[in-house]
Amino acid sequence: MKAARYYGKEDIRIEQVPEPTVRPGQIKVAPAFVGLCGTDLHEYLGGPNFCPTSQHPITGEAIPVTLGHEFSGVIKDIGPGVTGFKLGQTCAVQPTIYCGRCAACESGAENVCHDGGFIGLSGWGGGLSEAVCVNATNVFPLPEDLPLETGALVEPLAVAWHALSAAPEIGPDSTVLIIGGGPIGLAMILCLKAKGVETIIMSEIATSRQNFAKQFGATQVVNPLSDDVAKAVRDLSNGRGVDVSFDCAGVPASIKSACTAVKAKGTVVNLAIWEKEVPFNPNWMTAKESTYKSVLGYRRKDFEAVIENLRTGAIKPNGMITAKIKFENVVEDGIKRLISDKDNHVKIIVDVNAK
Amino acid sequence: MKAARYYGKEDIRIEQVPEPTVRPGQIKVAPAFVGLCGTDLHEYLGGPNFCPTSQHPITGEAIPVTLGHEFSGVIKDIGPGVTGFKLGQTCAVQPTIYCGRCAACESGAENVCHDGGFIGLSGWGGGLSEAVCVNATNVFPLPEDLPLETGALVEPLAVAWHALSAAPEIGPDSTVLIIGGGPIGLAMILCLKAKGVETIIMSEIATSRQNFAKQFGATQVVNPLSDDVAKAVRDLSNGRGVDVSFDCAGVPASIKSACTAVKAKGTVVNLAIWEKEVPFNPNWMTAKESTYKSVLGYRRKDFEAVIENLRTGAIKPNGMITAKIKFENVVEDGIKRLISDKDNHVKIIVDVNAK
Ligand SMILES: [Zn+2]
Ligand SMILES: [Zn+2]
Ligand SMILES: [Zn+2]
Ligand SMILES: [Zn+2]
Repeated sequence: MKAARYYGKEDIRIEQVPEPTVRPGQIKVAPAFVGLCGTDLHEYLGGPNFCPTSQHPITGEAIPVTLGHEFSGVIKDIGPGVTGFKLGQTCAVQPTIYCGRCAACESGAENVCHDGGFIGLSGWGGGLSEAVCVNATNVFPLPEDLPLETGALVEPLAVAWHALSAAPEIGPDSTVLIIGGGPIGLAMILCLKAKGVETIIMSEIATSRQNFAKQFGATQVVNPLSDDVAKAVRDLSNGRGVDVSFDCAGVPASIKSACTAVKAKGTVVNLAIWEKEVPFNPNWMTAKESTYKSVLGYRRKDFEAVIENLRTGAIKPNGMITAKIKFENVVEDGIKRLISDKDNHVKIIVDVNAK
Repeated sequence: MKAARYYGKEDIRIEQVPEPTVRPGQIKVAPAFVGLCGTDLHEYLGGPNFCPTSQHPITGEAIPVTLGHEFSGVIKDIGPGVTGFKLGQTCAVQPTIYCGRCAACESGAENVCHDGGFIGLSGWGGGLSEAVCVNATNVFPLPEDLPLETGALVEPLAVAWHALSAAPEIGPDSTVLIIGGGPIGLAMILCLKAKGVETIIMSEIATSRQNFAKQFGATQVVNPLSDDVAKAVRDLSNGRGVDVSFDCAGVPASIKSACTAVKAKGTVVNLAIWEKEVPFNPNWMTAKESTYKSVLGYRRKDFEAVIENLRTGAIKPNGMITAKIKFENVVEDGIKRLISDKDNHVKIIVDVNAK
């Protein structure tokens, strides 16, 4: 079967590899649509970062590995011992790989497993192939009338949904600041709107992303280079500061803005992955007795919640997919477009079966 | 009456000032014992920092101001409208000054009032005088058999007790790391022991403070310059990391150590006041989905809890007072000793009435 495999920096190859067969407890999925994201891009541009260069402690694999961790597909085979699934069923795949026995896993936080990884990055195949065998617990059937291409959005939406769990105080009356209007910041808007949140401020520099933010439902969009973000925050929060800020940018200015924008006892939630240490003043938190949390990935319940909210229409993903490309063109039309034209795209998805 | 008043850097004067009279809602306290702390020291060495150089928004005062914010005393007069107190009663004074109408105060977090201050730093008199008139809500009667000198420890103990509220998950089985064995770090040990916590790791460089930590009940004391703190943490936590770390040091090494020592979903609590921005990597929190909180001051319930725990003997403050000095010698024997010999002292207290 065909697979897009990562060999190292600027080296992704479409190759023929043996089709895997299901083992007990597994399901074979034929990927349909696969989203590309910043993680793929960083591996291509500057990796290997996440992809294992030596034997991964759980998958036992090293590069080359098959890419594609944001995907939907169709159930093609069901392994021994697996019940509750049907051949031909559409599904989204949670790519989480975890050990199940480290302190994090034992405490139920398998998303921060000390040895954790992702299908599509750490081995065990990936969505950018004609078939991938995954544990049945990683497979989430989709509602029958949900388009398969929407199914490829479940993973990035689950990242945003999971971030909500760090701020359970959020409700319809909350005022929220999102810093950074990339795919995750925009997914944050959709999830907050699904929760009924009415006041969402987006801070973003790029005009195209500002427009996406408005289209996705941000109450107010501010440009931190030209607008007074602190004033916008005050104006929309009766001078109190926002209840919660989400840092989806991950730059020195964003952490300061996120920390100083919250109200007394407010919460800052970081979703960004940082390249290095940044200047931080604990006094930002002391002055408000605020809380800084950081989140990683998602858990089963986040996948379940996103799929349920897509089913009811509470999450409105229209507009997230800005390009659909062919498998063969994943590098030229996908990865390279994310480099050259990232601000004009939310999600580029690969149609695995398009001819 | 006599009062020790702060005029500016290295300028504290013992002067005669008019004795204040109680207004409605107030109580006049004759201070008995007054603790000195790092805040006083910083004002002396490098201030004015906290003491107002122009009219304070709540007290309306500017320097010179009377010092002394950690004190016990005896009720000398009771103002109109005040009930529930007796002349001659011993008490501790909560020095918190707050506006009562800002967003922080409205949300019940008067300890982070936007305009907040402290009796003994921001005006309205202070403990380093023969009389101070404070709102009745700032006065906490002491159990009859509690020594007045112990009453002067209620304030620093309340700082530590308040920090516990940032980590309500702490229980007897918790493993806790305290970084910094100064007065607040040591008070943290006493409060944790009052909560029944059995495993308390103290990280401290100075030998004398290490000895205090052992004496106060730390399970293990490590020197971050020569010992492997991370290993000590692993050994005492079954390899998981501590449940909660308290940063009472406030230096670049301590924030990194505090953040990397916690377990998955653990909590970092900062009690230090920082001088400037420090290097911080949000990934420290992401990898564990841990929480960073910072606390400031205390609230009424913290004063109440400390006094109750002193009454029952759960908090054992013996050993905290390392010197008792005369009022007249507050600078020479107090402030200057905190500069020259700080590691050999926990609390230096001023005996206001000693001749
Ligand atoms: Zn991704
Ligand atoms: Zn694990
Ligand atoms: Zn103090
Ligand atoms: Zn206030």
